[in-house]
Amino acid sequence: MQDRLAADAGAIQTHLDQVLRDFGEDPVAEAMRYATRGGKCIRGFLVLEGARLHDVDGAAALWPATAIEALHAYSLVHDDLPAMDNDALRRGQPTVHVKWDEATAILVGDALQSLAFELISHPDCGPPATRADLTLSLARAAGGQGMVLGQALDIAAESTATPLSLDQITTLQQAKTGALILWAATAGARMAGADLAPLSAYARALGLAFQIQDDVIDVTGDAAAAGKAVGKDAAAGKATFVSLLGLDGARARAATLVDDACNALSCYGARADTLRGLARFVISRQN
Amino acid sequence: MQDRLAADAGAIQTHLDQVLRDFGEDPVAEAMRYATRGGKCIRGFLVLEGARLHDVDGAAALWPATAIEALHAYSLVHDDLPAMDNDALRRGQPTVHVKWDEATAILVGDALQSLAFELISHPDCGPPATRADLTLSLARAAGGQGMVLGQALDIAAESTATPLSLDQITTLQQAKTGALILWAATAGARMAGADLAPLSAYARALGLAFQIQDDVIDVTGDAAAAGKAVGKDAAAGKATFVSLLGLDGARARAATLVDDACNALSCYGARADTLRGLARFVISRQN
Repeated sequence: MQDRLAADAGAIQTHLDQVLRDFGEDPVAEAMRYATRGGKCIRGFLVLEGARLHDVDGAAALWPATAIEALHAYSLVHDDLPAMDNDALRRGQPTVHVKWDEATAILVGDALQSLAFELISHPDCGPPATRADLTLSLARAAGGQGMVLGQALDIAAESTATPLSLDQITTLQQAKTGALILWAATAGARMAGADLAPLSAYARALGLAFQIQDDVIDVTGDAAAAGKAVGKDAAAGKATFVSLLGLDGARARAATLVDDACNALSCYGARADTLRGLARFVISRQN
Repeated sequence: MQDRLAADAGAIQTHLDQVLRDFGEDPVAEAMRYATRGGKCIRGFLVLEGARLHDVDGAAALWPATAIEALHAYSLVHDDLPAMDNDALRRGQPTVHVKWDEATAILVGDALQSLAFELISHPDCGPPATRADLTLSLARAAGGQGMVLGQALDIAAESTATPLSLDQITTLQQAKTGALILWAATAGARMAGADLAPLSAYARALGLAFQIQDDVIDVTGDAAAAGKAVGKDAAAGKATFVSLLGLDGARARAATLVDDACNALSCYGARADTLRGLARFVISRQN
């Protein structure tokens, strides 16, 4: 699984680099290239694996795979801004507003979001009906009823005295990180016109397991391995899966969710073993 | 012309309000509604008029008309941020980061950009091929080779000692404000599968005339009439069409551009008189 993830991450990176080569030499273009490098490409990998499961052409699937990584990169650049999470380190490197400035970081995020929609509506991505479907679903997953809603709930939670309950955190995370993971996991099925239900169930469990592991890393990890600041949630007195379930409880919950994710793919048999491997990888990672 | 503009602006506003009614009661949703109110809707009007010229169904054209106003609103919210133009007043009201905070303003802009792509890929907007074409062209007009490039050039210009030349300002403005105006004016022709050339020529001249008038208002207007801060460019020693051409020269240039814009529509005859009226309106407005 990890070899295939690395190979797919390489293909996505190459495609992103090619697309962004045309964007000139101004600081925003340069920072767009910077912000899209060095990620694990888990979301793009989900697109490519979901496409393989449905015999979708890999060259076509590379467009939505690259699009979701551009969109994810935009969300990180804006999330790291001083007015948001105020993070100086991302993927082991200075964040965009630290390396350049805030105005550049705002524009880079904005341009990366546009780029995601440009990539997904590229003619090589598939017939128009596929592109329109991918665009509509991505816009909904990213916007004020998806990822941005999750971020808004997250910010609102910081200013209330009562910590969130487990149900509230689950709702928040399903919007904040879950919506894009759901979109990525189902994009290949969408392209094939197949049933989205099995991969949707897989993605919901995977997304939560992913977030629980993020909370675990925030408590147990070190910044060098994580490539970003750690210990921030506890310091802020923020409710997390770890603060609510305890470290062992959070790990047990993540393991159960990974089992759920794997079982959701039973209709695909052994063909889905790579996606099952990804689910297990997600809760073993340290960054 | 102004009656029709007012009627179309009302229809666009109603449609935006309807769409945003589903977005809940969190501050980001509330601020999205706030940020999309009170505009002149010139870009949306261009979409609807371009559609009328080509006998495109008005209900279908309302989707891209609403989309371009959502996209324009996003660009204003982000432009007004402290790290960008740092403006406290917009459309006669406090800007989003003043009324709420910076984090909300960043998220509101992000969500409004997603919303634009959601609107434009809505099934009621037209057949999939139309939607895919509108999406690809809008993503290019908005992103790092369109509007955001213009904003990046604008920021870069502020930090260089030599003021921009007329050619450089023209290039900058054609990206910063011209790209969206071009998209809006040609959207109806796109939906009809018609030749984009006449409306493209119209939009290029109109976009520049629009920007020149903005520079004129910045020098001659007062904040109450303009609904935003004025005199900022001169105070910042920034090169503008007025600083380069003088006030009379700038006005004369705008008038010539309006003639060019009107002439570009000769193939449409009297049917394009409303668009010609809009071009004349653009250089007479005080806000």
